[in-house]
Amino acid sequence: MKKIEHIGIAVKNIEQSVSLFEKLLNTNCYKKELVESEQVETAFFKTGENKIELVADVDDGVINKFISKRGEGIHHIAFDVEDIKAEMKRLEGEGFVLLNENPKNGADNKLVCFLHPKHTNGVLIELCQEKK
Amino acid sequence: MKKIEHIGIAVKNIEQSVSLFEKLLNTNCYKKELVESEQVETAFFKTGENKIELVADVDDGVINKFISKRGEGIHHIAFDVEDIKAEMKRLEGEGFVLLNENPKNGADNKLVCFLHPKHTNGVLIELCQEKK
Repeated sequence: MKKIEHIGIAVKNIEQSVSLFEKLLNTNCYKKELVESEQVETAFFKTGENKIELVADVDDGVINKFISKRGEGIHHIAFDVEDIKAEMKRLEGEGFVLLNENPKNGADNKLVCFLHPKHTNGVLIELCQEKK
Repeated sequence: MKKIEHIGIAVKNIEQSVSLFEKLLNTNCYKKELVESEQVETAFFKTGENKIELVADVDDGVINKFISKRGEGIHHIAFDVEDIKAEMKRLEGEGFVLLNENPKNGADNKLVCFLHPKHTNGVLIELCQEKK
């Protein structure tokens, strides 16, 4: 766990939320990306060494399911890791439960893996490693 | 909004969660602090240029109210600002709603102000400025 890479925020309407977060953060969205594997749209903002990622479903999917249960809001924290497989192994050894057996393709040229929030005080944690 | 100062995570039992997050983040909690004004206990971890703040009620209060509604989990994102009064004025001008008319004392030697999450896609935002 080197540092927080980004914070993911679940939203209904990506365009409206981009405009809102540009005003809030006083900075422009620098990238939008469709994540094919998850069927979500994402939009990124820089803040210090971190990013804020807005994420919305293309059609109804996991994000709208989250929103219908908990409302729009913070969805996950992603930590930058040097070696995702080594970190997955370390965390499994500590008793955490991985939601992905193998790293999968995420937004922003990353390999990612999620941890089950039941064992992390309700916080959905994403590990992400820059693809080499 | 200079950068993310910390992410606040609402927990029931601070001692159990400190132990959990030490394993998760692979780093030790470096500070615990009782915030008298809010009647909450806090515990801090460093990760890159950010902090993770665990926060629990001393008795039943706003944190347990949050937990009973949404479960344990991410409670707020705090942004470091240079001049909290200027930033409050800028955000009010953009249509955001402040939960504090004046900055108040927060944990970790900070002046803080919260924004109403109704106008920020459900994200509770804290502005914080280091006390001079």
